[in-house]
Amino acid sequence: MTQKKMALIATKGTLDWAYPPFILASTAASLGYEVQIFFTFYGLQLLRKELSHIKISPLANPAMPMPVPMPVLVQALPGMESMATMMMRDKMKKKGVASLEDLRSICIESDVKLIGCQMTVDLFDFKKSDFIEQTEFGGAATFLGFAGDADISLYI
Amino acid sequence: MTQKKMALIATKGTLDWAYPPFILASTAASLGYEVQIFFTFYGLQLLRKELSHIKISPLANPAMPMPVPMPVLVQALPGMESMATMMMRDKMKKKGVASLEDLRSICIESDVKLIGCQMTVDLFDFKKSDFIEQTEFGGAATFLGFAGDADISLYI
Amino acid sequence: MTQKKMALIATKGTLDWAYPPFILASTAASLGYEVQIFFTFYGLQLLRKELSHIKISPLANPAMPMPVPMPVLVQALPGMESMATMMMRDKMKKKGVASLEDLRSICIESDVKLIGCQMTVDLFDFKKSDFIEQTEFGGAATFLGFAGDADISLYI
Repeated sequence: MTQKKMALIATKGTLDWAYPPFILASTAASLGYEVQIFFTFYGLQLLRKELSHIKISPLANPAMPMPVPMPVLVQALPGMESMATMMMRDKMKKKGVASLEDLRSICIESDVKLIGCQMTVDLFDFKKSDFIEQTEFGGAATFLGFAGDADISLYI
Repeated sequence: MTQKKMALIATKGTLDWAYPPFILASTAASLGYEVQIFFTFYGLQLLRKELSHIKISPLANPAMPMPVPMPVLVQALPGMESMATMMMRDKMKKKGVASLEDLRSICIESDVKLIGCQMTVDLFDFKKSDFIEQTEFGGAATFLGFAGDADISLYI
Repeated sequence: MTQKKMALIATKGTLDWAYPPFILASTAASLGYEVQIFFTFYGLQLLRKELSHIKISPLANPAMPMPVPMPVLVQALPGMESMATMMMRDKMKKKGVASLEDLRSICIESDVKLIGCQMTVDLFDFKKSDFIEQTEFGGAATFLGFAGDADISLYI
């Protein structure tokens, strides 16, 4: 039986959408899948050495469970993004969900291949030294080469 | 000929993004597909007994066709979320699009399997009694077990 | 060897999320794939003759690299959406990224099939004459017919 493959495109860079690629990738790896994640657009933020800048916004997402209902205008006040981010990180920790940093490390230890989109690096003037050393760089064609033979391909 | 399979991950909980999983699932089921939907993060809201809390936000989506152009700051005023939600529901009804509740019922009658993400239930302190009785609970590994053999897998 | 196939669902209509379907489709086509894109919900905006109305919002996306950090309330001021849009278009151009119009033309020349969602056309009262002449119209069942045999299916 040949090894199963999963190809992910990670395009978001907020705290909530940072979890799905790392959770899906580490779970698939633990099930014996070969996994590659292509980080593009805002998703490239998830490959930076420091992840402390990853934030969440309470705005424009009425589906986010809030401890206290809050008018939209209040959500736009200075400091609310940081507060929502702190609350989410706290909740995750208290509930025993691994931190982003830990989930990313598990992916690396499980041989998940992490590919940074070269076009995005150029577009946003990132430096390659901003990213963790396990990052490989490539383009959409590189990703499609793998995804075309994958059993699961997801755009996150 | 073996039965085709479709695996969906539903991660959003706003009114606009509540439709795609139920529309795609019911359409696929009517074409003879075996379908499973894994509801995780905000998507879990779509399995609650009551769907009247599902809202839409006009903020941060300049692509939403609005009956009257509106400055962003006005969109942030109290009541605008409810107004946008009411307008969208009205439009859907007038145009003959089935309600969320109806689409979900069609999925259930068509044997679409609805899986709630256990980790999200724990994280947001939901109670299992909040959800419709057809909900089964599982984790990412459960979902990947099905998706790995599916003909179509989509992350919504 | 049979020709590989890729099926995309394009659901977003903002400037940032307008690029991924056209970039992935044109890249796949250049690798010899047969490609179909199903434009639904806000994604239908990407098939309009004029693309100058496609905007980006700085709101609710703390992951967007901004030249100058800006409080959320300032991002909500009148004119900021247009400013962010102008800045993004400028950046793309300066970095040599093809414009949306050009990317769409490349897709058309590469025989990428562009399908507009009939239900969305009806829902938002669009006229068929709003769309480029290469648009074909269909529903979710049409799309699934192709996606069920595709090597890669992505929901964008």
